[in-house]
Amino acid sequence: MSLQNLRTHFVSEINPATDDGKAVVLSGWVHEIRDLGGICFVVLRDRSGRAQITMVKKKTDAELLDTAKRQSRESVISVTGIVKAEPKAPNGYEIIPSTITLINESASPLPMDTTGKVDAELDTRLDNRFIDLRREESTAIFLIRNQVQKSIREFLYENKFMETSTPKIVAAATEGGTDLFPISYFDREAFLNQSPQLFKQMLMASGFDRVFEIGPIFRAEEHDTRKHLNEATSIDIEMSFADHEDVMEILEKMIVRVYEDVSEKCSKSLEILGVTLKIPKLPFKKYTYENVLDIINNEIPEIETKMQFGDDIGTQAEHLFGEYVFNKTGESHYFITAWPTKTKPFYAMPNADRPEISNSFDMMHRTMELSSGAQRAHLYDVLCNQIRSKGLNVDSFEFYLKPFQFGMPPHGGFGVGCERLVMTMLELDNVREAVLFPRDRKRLSP
Amino acid sequence: MSLQNLRTHFVSEINPATDDGKAVVLSGWVHEIRDLGGICFVVLRDRSGRAQITMVKKKTDAELLDTAKRQSRESVISVTGIVKAEPKAPNGYEIIPSTITLINESASPLPMDTTGKVDAELDTRLDNRFIDLRREESTAIFLIRNQVQKSIREFLYENKFMETSTPKIVAAATEGGTDLFPISYFDREAFLNQSPQLFKQMLMASGFDRVFEIGPIFRAEEHDTRKHLNEATSIDIEMSFADHEDVMEILEKMIVRVYEDVSEKCSKSLEILGVTLKIPKLPFKKYTYENVLDIINNEIPEIETKMQFGDDIGTQAEHLFGEYVFNKTGESHYFITAWPTKTKPFYAMPNADRPEISNSFDMMHRTMELSSGAQRAHLYDVLCNQIRSKGLNVDSFEFYLKPFQFGMPPHGGFGVGCERLVMTMLELDNVREAVLFPRDRKRLSP
Repeated sequence: MSLQNLRTHFVSEINPATDDGKAVVLSGWVHEIRDLGGICFVVLRDRSGRAQITMVKKKTDAELLDTAKRQSRESVISVTGIVKAEPKAPNGYEIIPSTITLINESASPLPMDTTGKVDAELDTRLDNRFIDLRREESTAIFLIRNQVQKSIREFLYENKFMETSTPKIVAAATEGGTDLFPISYFDREAFLNQSPQLFKQMLMASGFDRVFEIGPIFRAEEHDTRKHLNEATSIDIEMSFADHEDVMEILEKMIVRVYEDVSEKCSKSLEILGVTLKIPKLPFKKYTYENVLDIINNEIPEIETKMQFGDDIGTQAEHLFGEYVFNKTGESHYFITAWPTKTKPFYAMPNADRPEISNSFDMMHRTMELSSGAQRAHLYDVLCNQIRSKGLNVDSFEFYLKPFQFGMPPHGGFGVGCERLVMTMLELDNVREAVLFPRDRKRLSP
Repeated sequence: MSLQNLRTHFVSEINPATDDGKAVVLSGWVHEIRDLGGICFVVLRDRSGRAQITMVKKKTDAELLDTAKRQSRESVISVTGIVKAEPKAPNGYEIIPSTITLINESASPLPMDTTGKVDAELDTRLDNRFIDLRREESTAIFLIRNQVQKSIREFLYENKFMETSTPKIVAAATEGGTDLFPISYFDREAFLNQSPQLFKQMLMASGFDRVFEIGPIFRAEEHDTRKHLNEATSIDIEMSFADHEDVMEILEKMIVRVYEDVSEKCSKSLEILGVTLKIPKLPFKKYTYENVLDIINNEIPEIETKMQFGDDIGTQAEHLFGEYVFNKTGESHYFITAWPTKTKPFYAMPNADRPEISNSFDMMHRTMELSSGAQRAHLYDVLCNQIRSKGLNVDSFEFYLKPFQFGMPPHGGFGVGCERLVMTMLELDNVREAVLFPRDRKRLSP
């Protein structure tokens, strides 16, 4: 047995120029039925788009017409028929059906509108995510997210990175932080990992040289904003015999590759979302942290309190600086480099000439951090000092520190939030739009 | 700044035929130093292999020679020199160095031997995983695992699957089972997901049609065997308008593709591991559960107790049956289909003609289950009955059941254990060999 006979084509695979007159089988959902008396249209929808099934009353078998009209919206049907080129129909063709088979009937009323005619709140949509994802805008986001990950993998393979998987269950916090979800691991306490950081660095000691991982990270932060998630997908890389400059070059090229590929390969999804992508210009503009302070203090009058070395760049300043860069350069993406050592995690390498600044960077999109990265401290003594200077206990990092004693190459890396990358690219209002089933402070289901 | 000048080539990228006489820079680890008096060899190792740095005493600068001899094993060095074709050297060339720079010195003694001359216990190796992974056999396994995942993704993309990410933090058990790790999720209890099953099925209701996910799964089983892990990587697919037969066809073709690609693209790693891959023959042999019982009862005398419909196929029987198939067909891979409905999870579709058997399958490699799959129960009433018949509460599956009321297409899917796939392909004794940092009952670090 096989159900392959239920479909010969996805809707978008039919080419009216070459398939006119051909018999096809489509399967999908009843998007809409329009009964105009003398003519009846059933719009069938699948992942790839919509097809119009046309029945002229006088020319259509009465039973078939009756079957068509009886279908409830969002039921699953299979339609066998002949392709007829029709420039006015979606995708340039209509189907003249010979059979319409009901495969699984949908109950009514639907928990949510799928036609886009009624706007639903994000919470209602996420509560009914299975049906929200049938909206062409939602489908478009995830077709694009699929392409984003595909392009990133291809780019990294071309650059000799190998894919790795590191544990999500860990014995201790990566950064000595507190924002961790505790797990009962048999008779012990363990945690969900907040980042593959320590593992990908250990793999540099193993000589894996260039690794990447695209996987879940977990942060028990109590944020409840439009840009934070408690479970997210992180795109992490680490590379040996490289410093922060080398890593930034990989990162900016990777971003450009993603924009180029999505632009070329997801044009229909972009059109549905009303987004025109502008490919970022290489190289991305770099501002040191101290440049940023100068500009904020001298060129952005809206910020009244002068900033000093070591201060955090707060939300307002970040926002205004992003606008400043965009107005000045026309570019959304830029780097802020050379952050004060004390504002960055212990594994960032202090600058050799000025140890109070680190060989670190953030990559920004206008007003949002998309990525953090650095050359890492690869020298055992430097690293131990860094850990101590953060008030952390060197002993609790034993498993991580050991590799640094036995041949650790210089290395650097970054992490990019996959959802934020998609969010900024597609100008989504809320990062939850870019996650199938988001997890936040309040949401644990579906 | 940039550290790109630390390396022009990976070891294996130098071609003695075309690069003879060329100046190159290699970076890597001091694998070995052989001082034969008149001549001194330093063997430099990187991810791709080993290169011989040759210094003839009479022709070499005394200081350079002295630097070379002073390096401790496993230190990180960078070597600038001229390629000289030399058929007897590894990779067919040697390097005549002009400079050798110590980048990061390794302490001595090493926590573990890396030359393969001393056999270490698996536990010792896993305790020192960072250095164990420098052994060429360990590196080879993960280069192959990288290719396995790459080939699977390529195959699935070609077959119109899109990649998805589903939550690892969930409110309830997927299968109503008990083997779950509990998490404190803010003020609530949650669990680590044991499989993306329910989510990938919901995506079928969303019309995503063909999805896959390669990601972590978590099982709190107290097993302590060579083939169980508490955190593993699962390769999951789900496809619409498809039944178990369609799904098995995708699965067997995917496996063959992996074997073909690894065979072609990882020949050096296979050689290091001493493995010759035999590409499985398509289609894989299928035995129904009842066929298996007949054969066990009538053709395998070692099993003394006769098996009856509904009995589990125990470890011994599974083992002997796998040998039986291999001896009979010369093939390691085969399917066992049509399992009793009561032995499979609620989401497996009962057979229309004989509801006591299900449209389910396991894919086996000799004596080990590599994959489980099925056509799924897509009809709401059938599914509710199935849930009740397992003694589970329909109400606790509300978020999962709702999609089945509003247009769920027929669908099927499978999950493959990535580590077991690599383990069986490479004839590894222990599944932990195929995980960078394994998690089991006792091991939570590194």
